[in-house]
Amino acid sequence: MILVNGENKGYISASDRGFQYGDGVFETIEVINAKPVFLKQHLDRLFIGCRTLRIPPPDLTTLKQEVQQVCLNIKLGVLKIIITRGIGGRGYCPPVNPDATRVLSLHPFPDYVERYANQGINARFCKSRLGVNPVLAGIKHLNRLEQIMARAEWDDPEIQEGIVLNINEHVIEGTMSNLFYIKNRMLHTACLDTAGVSGVVRGVIKMIASQQNLNLIEHDYGQQSLLDADELFMCNSIIGIWPVIHLAGIDCPIGPITRQLQSWLKEFKAKDCLDE
Amino acid sequence: MILVNGENKGYISASDRGFQYGDGVFETIEVINAKPVFLKQHLDRLFIGCRTLRIPPPDLTTLKQEVQQVCLNIKLGVLKIIITRGIGGRGYCPPVNPDATRVLSLHPFPDYVERYANQGINARFCKSRLGVNPVLAGIKHLNRLEQIMARAEWDDPEIQEGIVLNINEHVIEGTMSNLFYIKNRMLHTACLDTAGVSGVVRGVIKMIASQQNLNLIEHDYGQQSLLDADELFMCNSIIGIWPVIHLAGIDCPIGPITRQLQSWLKEFKAKDCLDE
Repeated sequence: MILVNGENKGYISASDRGFQYGDGVFETIEVINAKPVFLKQHLDRLFIGCRTLRIPPPDLTTLKQEVQQVCLNIKLGVLKIIITRGIGGRGYCPPVNPDATRVLSLHPFPDYVERYANQGINARFCKSRLGVNPVLAGIKHLNRLEQIMARAEWDDPEIQEGIVLNINEHVIEGTMSNLFYIKNRMLHTACLDTAGVSGVVRGVIKMIASQQNLNLIEHDYGQQSLLDADELFMCNSIIGIWPVIHLAGIDCPIGPITRQLQSWLKEFKAKDCLDE
Repeated sequence: MILVNGENKGYISASDRGFQYGDGVFETIEVINAKPVFLKQHLDRLFIGCRTLRIPPPDLTTLKQEVQQVCLNIKLGVLKIIITRGIGGRGYCPPVNPDATRVLSLHPFPDYVERYANQGINARFCKSRLGVNPVLAGIKHLNRLEQIMARAEWDDPEIQEGIVLNINEHVIEGTMSNLFYIKNRMLHTACLDTAGVSGVVRGVIKMIASQQNLNLIEHDYGQQSLLDADELFMCNSIIGIWPVIHLAGIDCPIGPITRQLQSWLKEFKAKDCLDE
């Protein structure tokens, strides 16, 4: 099912600014037993993105009804929500009163997620660099060519994720995930004030760390910090936490803090699924 | 008329990667008497963009036929061509054999172009900065949030264009145009190896300068160079050459080289319209 402004149709106007300029934001959400996981956090980020881009956010009640409609009877799936500035003529100048477009679609849940969460993944460093743009940094917007170019660098199915740096050679994230490393029982992750997407699960992990008195630091760091790390993992809303077991020819055994975080994240998800 | 893969319909699949990620390129072309101006240069840039993004370029004969079809009987208009990587599932990884989407649409030619070409425009410096990304620099791709954010900074109708710098404080271009300045009879324009769009008319002006033995230098420069300039103009395929007469509170009279370049550009266009 693909709902476009509430209508079950699979197409949008070719004049939509989402298509013309990538002028919009999106969310990708795990659905378990008809319940979108961490929906509040996803909608919060979606609305922050709309505010930053000055796109009128969708009516929350309507959006939640549509989410329910799309997720109905879904045991396990992926919900994607796209909000664009709608149809607005030729030219970059945003219309004064934009009529935003909402697209909700449902996708199959990937069958490999659990396997890689258990056994870990192989990662590589990408050659592509992320541009630095403080205004757009953190937002899950529709301008994703940098991620596409980075992901297009390899087609070896034995490599599950690529790590991208920004043009200042700071490690930022994975092509589709955020990245944490652990050194001396301290959690480290990149600052996302110049580039990157502020992931919902990254936010949940920060919350868990704070509740569990696990030290966490957000800072700029380079490739060597990852090679010297005790533990390493990638995360997003669909994969949860994937331990990295190989990076750039180096073995990294799956560590106890990664396993502990996987277990805490599972509890958090279970609790979230019970909440109304 | 909006041709989508040869069909006269105004919509595209909501799963198109152009809509999902801005995964594509585009061209905006002036049409005079059913003839797209500088078509060869536009198609060259379109194909270079496709190659860089590894999107299979459209069949040239088909594309040219569709261009002709859309421009038929058009006295004056704007042709927009969009090529995307097509439909390709959820996820950044480009499909192995993408089936690219072609969208050709026709738009009215703005009625203010001639007026501003004659009388000049007011320009401002934008606060937004362009990110630095050498891989995407120069390409007219569909990731245009930076231009939208810059263009959204002002709504004063007395200001016709904004000038954007990159994060290194180098002047790059206008929100929808390229920028030249003249100092001591030398033409200056920005290097576009970190950011910006390599405009077709910018390329034509470079060619004219070379034919007319006008010295031209592409280099990194800051705001002050513009404030100290003898002449200043913006250009693109629709506006041609617009002299800048006010910038950041400073008056800049329209100079003889700008007027001469407008006249040479007119000749070049006329010649191009005669070519088959």
